[in-house]
Amino acid sequence: MAEDNFPFPETRVLAIASHVVYGYVGNTMAGFVIQSMGCEVAAINSVQLSNHLGYGQAKGTRATAAEITDLYDGLKASYLDEFDMMLSGYLPGASAVEAVGSIARDLKYKHTMKPGSFFWVLDPVMGDNGRLYVAEDVIPAYKNLIKDADLILPNQFEAETISGIKIVDMVTLKLAITTLHERYRIPHIMITSISLQSPGSEPFLAVVGSTFTTAVKPRLFRVKIPAIDCFFSGTGDMFAALMLVRLREAVFAVDGLYETAAWVSGDEVAPTELPLAKATEKVLASMHQVLTRTKVSRDAELERYEKRVGTRNTGEDEKRLKLEVSKATEVRLVRNLDMLKHPEVKFRAEDF
Amino acid sequence: MAEDNFPFPETRVLAIASHVVYGYVGNTMAGFVIQSMGCEVAAINSVQLSNHLGYGQAKGTRATAAEITDLYDGLKASYLDEFDMMLSGYLPGASAVEAVGSIARDLKYKHTMKPGSFFWVLDPVMGDNGRLYVAEDVIPAYKNLIKDADLILPNQFEAETISGIKIVDMVTLKLAITTLHERYRIPHIMITSISLQSPGSEPFLAVVGSTFTTAVKPRLFRVKIPAIDCFFSGTGDMFAALMLVRLREAVFAVDGLYETAAWVSGDEVAPTELPLAKATEKVLASMHQVLTRTKVSRDAELERYEKRVGTRNTGEDEKRLKLEVSKATEVRLVRNLDMLKHPEVKFRAEDF
Repeated sequence: MAEDNFPFPETRVLAIASHVVYGYVGNTMAGFVIQSMGCEVAAINSVQLSNHLGYGQAKGTRATAAEITDLYDGLKASYLDEFDMMLSGYLPGASAVEAVGSIARDLKYKHTMKPGSFFWVLDPVMGDNGRLYVAEDVIPAYKNLIKDADLILPNQFEAETISGIKIVDMVTLKLAITTLHERYRIPHIMITSISLQSPGSEPFLAVVGSTFTTAVKPRLFRVKIPAIDCFFSGTGDMFAALMLVRLREAVFAVDGLYETAAWVSGDEVAPTELPLAKATEKVLASMHQVLTRTKVSRDAELERYEKRVGTRNTGEDEKRLKLEVSKATEVRLVRNLDMLKHPEVKFRAEDF
Repeated sequence: MAEDNFPFPETRVLAIASHVVYGYVGNTMAGFVIQSMGCEVAAINSVQLSNHLGYGQAKGTRATAAEITDLYDGLKASYLDEFDMMLSGYLPGASAVEAVGSIARDLKYKHTMKPGSFFWVLDPVMGDNGRLYVAEDVIPAYKNLIKDADLILPNQFEAETISGIKIVDMVTLKLAITTLHERYRIPHIMITSISLQSPGSEPFLAVVGSTFTTAVKPRLFRVKIPAIDCFFSGTGDMFAALMLVRLREAVFAVDGLYETAAWVSGDEVAPTELPLAKATEKVLASMHQVLTRTKVSRDAELERYEKRVGTRNTGEDEKRLKLEVSKATEVRLVRNLDMLKHPEVKFRAEDF
């Protein structure tokens, strides 16, 4: 049986995020990645847009909070609300955030009597690089949600926003994570895309994670990978999707852990031995391989484009080139699925 | 390079059909299948529903014709309207059918100077088993579209509806296909799910296909497969998706055919040697394997359900059981992708 090759049982994931017609962000990225890794995905699309906003324009529609709730009610009416995990990403406004919170709490409540049988990965999408790209009232809406999530995946800016701590060095980074554990009682935290300057060293990206102890103390680890000199869209969604699957896999590799509330490892487990750390190693290995390949394809595609059109340096040409760059930089997935499934792990979790 | 393993170049498909949150029909089936086979999919979702209508109810929203057109305009504005193939499936009403026709003609027009560089697979979703499940005005809307498509995939009822010929035996089946070729100048036709009773024989399913000659005569072939005693949803979408990919693969295996208008083979090619026939063999092999596996999982799931709840035979129980059957019968895809990619071909095309 082909199914015997999967290291964890059949898994149903409810994924709530955006849909774009062209390219890979939101559910269009996360849904496909999770499915490719052998899990079932029920995708509630919070928006349907022609493309992501990196193209400077997009057409389409946004779902209202009522429409999101309605889709979930439709699932319930058909007894289709049986999920093992949930992933929430970009939501178009505070009321949609609240609606998704209600859905998550409803699912959590159903699973109260079976600890570990439901796990919510929350990506609190609010902004990046110091810039908020949602309305102000989304911030308090997310703050109300986090206490019910099992794993949050803020980037550096979002971690600062929800912790209230400006991250400028290792000390403030640790303080931010400690604060998030304590304030929201959130068991697992991954801060993605940390960029702390270390003069003279090679450029690298770091992610920092922690699973709290019974005393709500952080267990911090870090994984560093070489930076790729290119801005890709949808990498946060790719990270979240891979993390969801790899964490489940890592938890099922430990006796009984999947029946433990929020999959929190016993206090004897060292930071770098946490399932969260093991999962992160595989996630980053896959991402580094896929993005390295994407960069090669991108550069070749742009070279072909420039050969074809030449460089005339008019304003229209520049606008067009910018769009071609966005298009060429879409993550290459469909022919690189082996890199998702069988990554070569080169970057290891280290104490932090 | 992993990409070297793919027997045809990178392929971009525009897929316009429905999205369901739970289960596999429309784009939720076709999009994932096409992606899993290594092609890029841009999915315009014509509806977003909680589940397919086999569950007796569904909640969600339908896109208007204007919203579908708007998404396409968004792609054009970002220069993202470069597609090699298009697949259209369920559309919510006549104006949506017309909107999709305009999109297809726009793409066709762009490719006029490069024969074979754009190919439209049209699944004229109107009904099944003698029952229309769209509004009456959808029929003339589809009739206006078919002349611009390259391959149509009607089921028996839809073939009758657009040809005006009631299919009751081999003679009328051939007449219907001949009529469709002649009336609409449609190059490729596959009639899926033919059920003609042959007394005393084992139950089987047959699909019948044809690619016309330069004289617009049919080249008919048939593939028979053993019937599985179970009603599955989304199999038409699965067939369409696999056919799109396998036809492209078969066309690229023939020197220069991909640069021939509508990929029509020279008159010297026999029916069973057509790329359409070769593709059909692989498509049906994959489907038979996946659906056989699905049936096994379904029966096991229903047995577990019945053990759990017992049989109390109240009205509520019966309603619930019907929903459990629908759920258990959802096609098992995510852990059976090998069957899509590497089917064991057992059923061959034969002259007809």
